[in-house]
Amino acid sequence: MKYFRPNINDMKGYEPGEQLDGGYIKLNTNENPYPPSPAVIEAVRDAAGEVRLYPDPQAGILREKAAGIYGLSAESVMVGNGSDELLTIALRAFVGEGQRVAYPCPSYVLYPTLVGIQGAEAVEVPFAQDYSLPEALLETDARLIFLSNPNSPSGTFVPVDRVAELASRTSGIVLVDEAYVDFAEDNCLRLVGECDNVIVTRSFSKSFSLAGMRIGLAFARPGIIDGMMKVKDSYNVGRLSIVAGSAAIDDIAYMEQNAAKIQAERERLASELKARGFEVFPSSANFLLAKPAGVSGADLYRGLKERMILVRHFDTASLSGYVRITVGTAEQMDALLAAVDEIVDKGTSLSN
Amino acid sequence: MKYFRPNINDMKGYEPGEQLDGGYIKLNTNENPYPPSPAVIEAVRDAAGEVRLYPDPQAGILREKAAGIYGLSAESVMVGNGSDELLTIALRAFVGEGQRVAYPCPSYVLYPTLVGIQGAEAVEVPFAQDYSLPEALLETDARLIFLSNPNSPSGTFVPVDRVAELASRTSGIVLVDEAYVDFAEDNCLRLVGECDNVIVTRSFSKSFSLAGMRIGLAFARPGIIDGMMKVKDSYNVGRLSIVAGSAAIDDIAYMEQNAAKIQAERERLASELKARGFEVFPSSANFLLAKPAGVSGADLYRGLKERMILVRHFDTASLSGYVRITVGTAEQMDALLAAVDEIVDKGTSLSN
Repeated sequence: MKYFRPNINDMKGYEPGEQLDGGYIKLNTNENPYPPSPAVIEAVRDAAGEVRLYPDPQAGILREKAAGIYGLSAESVMVGNGSDELLTIALRAFVGEGQRVAYPCPSYVLYPTLVGIQGAEAVEVPFAQDYSLPEALLETDARLIFLSNPNSPSGTFVPVDRVAELASRTSGIVLVDEAYVDFAEDNCLRLVGECDNVIVTRSFSKSFSLAGMRIGLAFARPGIIDGMMKVKDSYNVGRLSIVAGSAAIDDIAYMEQNAAKIQAERERLASELKARGFEVFPSSANFLLAKPAGVSGADLYRGLKERMILVRHFDTASLSGYVRITVGTAEQMDALLAAVDEIVDKGTSLSN
Repeated sequence: MKYFRPNINDMKGYEPGEQLDGGYIKLNTNENPYPPSPAVIEAVRDAAGEVRLYPDPQAGILREKAAGIYGLSAESVMVGNGSDELLTIALRAFVGEGQRVAYPCPSYVLYPTLVGIQGAEAVEVPFAQDYSLPEALLETDARLIFLSNPNSPSGTFVPVDRVAELASRTSGIVLVDEAYVDFAEDNCLRLVGECDNVIVTRSFSKSFSLAGMRIGLAFARPGIIDGMMKVKDSYNVGRLSIVAGSAAIDDIAYMEQNAAKIQAERERLASELKARGFEVFPSSANFLLAKPAGVSGADLYRGLKERMILVRHFDTASLSGYVRITVGTAEQMDALLAAVDEIVDKGTSLSN
């Protein structure tokens, strides 16, 4: 259509994971199986009558609470309409048309979409087989590097000193997308103090069970945050989201308990799948990337969907043999394993 | 800072109207003095427990309700995180670096900021003294024209047939920003059917009393909406915002009653100010742009602020003599007028 920029005309829109209603066990978009803290829900209900007025443009209360709990100054924190918005803001702040954005792949499938929207150039550097950081990523001259860590869809974690090396060797910004880091053993937040070119983003969608509220955080040096603030919409985070995020931080122990339950269930699921001959990557996230034995990734996805269980299947060369499974409750994982057994048995009997 | 794009380094961030706490009569950011519909607050409270899951990426329920009530197909409607986000999306969809965006001025002070973020070129065409549409705007070859209608900060309205003429004579997109249109007598929605290059945006922040929820709508031909959808963040509108917007449309009569009260109060305020020698532009919005007699715009702003009343003062050559006053309740307007009388009396006695 003639009115659009060529890069917009040429691109396919991002397709989020399916959001189907009605009876599915939803293990496809890495939501938390546990509800948010009751204190969060109560705080939102209490504030529902206050939505006549604009929110604080800087989400000051949440900014200060996040600064406090993560040990940084408020000037080093920015609140976004989900961490997706913070990725968009970084692209718009640091990358002009035709400039380079690098990221290892496969990774978060939103990155190429964001690069396409900006009219920038994507430099996709394949991960090694074991999802360790590819040396070639350190040699790019990208204006911005996205590093999902833990990575989606693999769940793997790049050690912090390796990320520090990446930051010291690149001339641009390194954005460490820590959407899943509350399920990991380590994180890159300390690099904000050590490097002037590191941005760490966090999400309240996974560990805090608040995907529906759209809350993300970015941490970086104040000069970086100042510039990113210029790019955001004036009132990018709604009043109730600020309230929910603040209440969630006040009750962070609740989140940590849920994260610990999910970590334990993740390890059990990994063992069970390996016992069935699946290849499973070591995960530091709330999901597993697993390659089934005796059935294709697409067939496992379809078989599970027929049984009212949604997982994520990526139809690309390197990932088509796999499915990505969000870790749910023990009951959900038992249902998943029972369904897997049915599908694999059937697949094996068909192929005999 | 070396990491930023030059256009971001060079620009000043947008400064939203002051959001001060504590006891002010807030007439500076065009919020509605009446609370949102009780049905909206109740719906939000009821849905507060459902925020664990991601929202519908297309906000389908709200999209369909809006389509129904405004007489368009759902494919002609898009929901944004406030109408500000829809303006941003339009810029990103239609305007590349260095390309032109035109708008009459003075108008919504966010437009130049958005153009700056995109690295585009702003073509600012001065309004005539009476805020009629300047002929020169029809002669630009801009990729995108913003028309705030009713205009902020003047409150004036460009007749729909004149907007149709603008759309027919320009080669790019005309985005009619109707944030205030529920306080006007006419609107440009019918142009979506007549012109393939018109986008109409609406906001729930003013007439629906939902500034804190961040809800905006865009209306355009399906091909335009499709392309804009590619540019938005995947989950740009939160669950509770979708719920609030849907409930607000279900109770649209409540909004219309409030809008009528504000229109009536606006006319009373205009008469009272004119009786005091103020120059007041005819307003189709929920605010008045008024030039005081006997005192400067800046002094009136300061005098009102000392008396705990916030209005908006724009420190530019064409606007510095004026203040923009949001129309509030009758009681608030009485307080405003009493304060104005004090300030003007004092200013007059000082200048004698």
